[in-house]
Amino acid sequence: MPPVISVVGKPDCGKTTLLERLIPELNRRGYRVGTIKHHVHRFEMDVPGKDTWRHKQAGARIVALSSPTGLGIVRDVEEDCSIEELVGRYFFDVDLVLTEGYKRAALPKIEVYRHRLHAEPLPADETWIAVVSDCPTPRNLPHFTPKDHEGLASFLIDRFILPATTPEITLLVNGRRIPLNGFVQAFLRQAVTGMITSLKGCEHPREISLHLHNEPRTRAD
Amino acid sequence: MPPVISVVGKPDCGKTTLLERLIPELNRRGYRVGTIKHHVHRFEMDVPGKDTWRHKQAGARIVALSSPTGLGIVRDVEEDCSIEELVGRYFFDVDLVLTEGYKRAALPKIEVYRHRLHAEPLPADETWIAVVSDCPTPRNLPHFTPKDHEGLASFLIDRFILPATTPEITLLVNGRRIPLNGFVQAFLRQAVTGMITSLKGCEHPREISLHLHNEPRTRAD
Repeated sequence: MPPVISVVGKPDCGKTTLLERLIPELNRRGYRVGTIKHHVHRFEMDVPGKDTWRHKQAGARIVALSSPTGLGIVRDVEEDCSIEELVGRYFFDVDLVLTEGYKRAALPKIEVYRHRLHAEPLPADETWIAVVSDCPTPRNLPHFTPKDHEGLASFLIDRFILPATTPEITLLVNGRRIPLNGFVQAFLRQAVTGMITSLKGCEHPREISLHLHNEPRTRAD
Repeated sequence: MPPVISVVGKPDCGKTTLLERLIPELNRRGYRVGTIKHHVHRFEMDVPGKDTWRHKQAGARIVALSSPTGLGIVRDVEEDCSIEELVGRYFFDVDLVLTEGYKRAALPKIEVYRHRLHAEPLPADETWIAVVSDCPTPRNLPHFTPKDHEGLASFLIDRFILPATTPEITLLVNGRRIPLNGFVQAFLRQAVTGMITSLKGCEHPREISLHLHNEPRTRAD
């Protein structure tokens, strides 16, 4: 799983603006970035009136718009997806995931803070890794000004992207991510890769995705 | 993988309108439906100006909007995703997938045809399974009128959903779906389920998803 870092801060503090500077800087250095925005209000992503929007309105659980350059998926969920499930399922080919929001998740966090707007920053905890602000911060953490996206990119690469160079394995069972220690990771990787390699056309499996259901597909309850 | 059926026809023949009638009818009978729209023009799904749209514009490869009721993903792709990859990766919890377009894919097809608009229907082949039209069809195939979504739903359930009740396994290697015969399916299922069942919290794996990379994650080329 790629490293995940959350950008947090009070409303209008400049989280999206920071991402708009940081993403191209990371791209410029050759890194692929994914982002996740957490949203607690009414969900809306597609453009009203389009065919996919009409499918969704008619009651489709999942709709996809597929083209030669882009892919869009809009789907129902019964509850908030965990970051682990989201990243494990959907972010399989990026080098770093940046989230906006997720103040309460156990993720490394960059706080954005604007002195003019908010007298106090958020209450911090040990997951805080840096502060981006237009004023000095009393926190004992690396500090970047809102325009120092180059400095912040270097910090993230050195501290989070470059160390994450071991091959990876993600296991979801009944939709829940299962933590794997080093031994189990190595065992699963070698066992599964060994079986797959013997199949025709699978001699060099750089990436393997296996989905299996152990119960017959039945009508929704 | 759930069964996939394509709705095809000339422009403005009523494909989306048919889906708008068919989806709620299938829902009413307890089936979860996914849809895929194939699009060859400029890709656009998100609403301009929104935070996720801004992330994408800034260069994010994948953006997600996650809420307690819905999830949206918009991502770059280098080429058209195959139906197999799309359905295998993203449509893991529906009973049927209906696509709009994909005239050339080897999928069972329902043709929608409006006599008033088009003198001739599409050239058919052996993948055609039914015709929906406002006029009698010369084809030797089950025929439904545009408002007979109940009849069409019954036909699809009897012929495609109910028979698809065996447990399923999908394998993607380097992003490509690998066809598996019955023996290999059973072998992989039992081997992987056996290994996973011995992990803590995985005693009853109804659904297993495993993603692994056999090369270290490196900078994008």
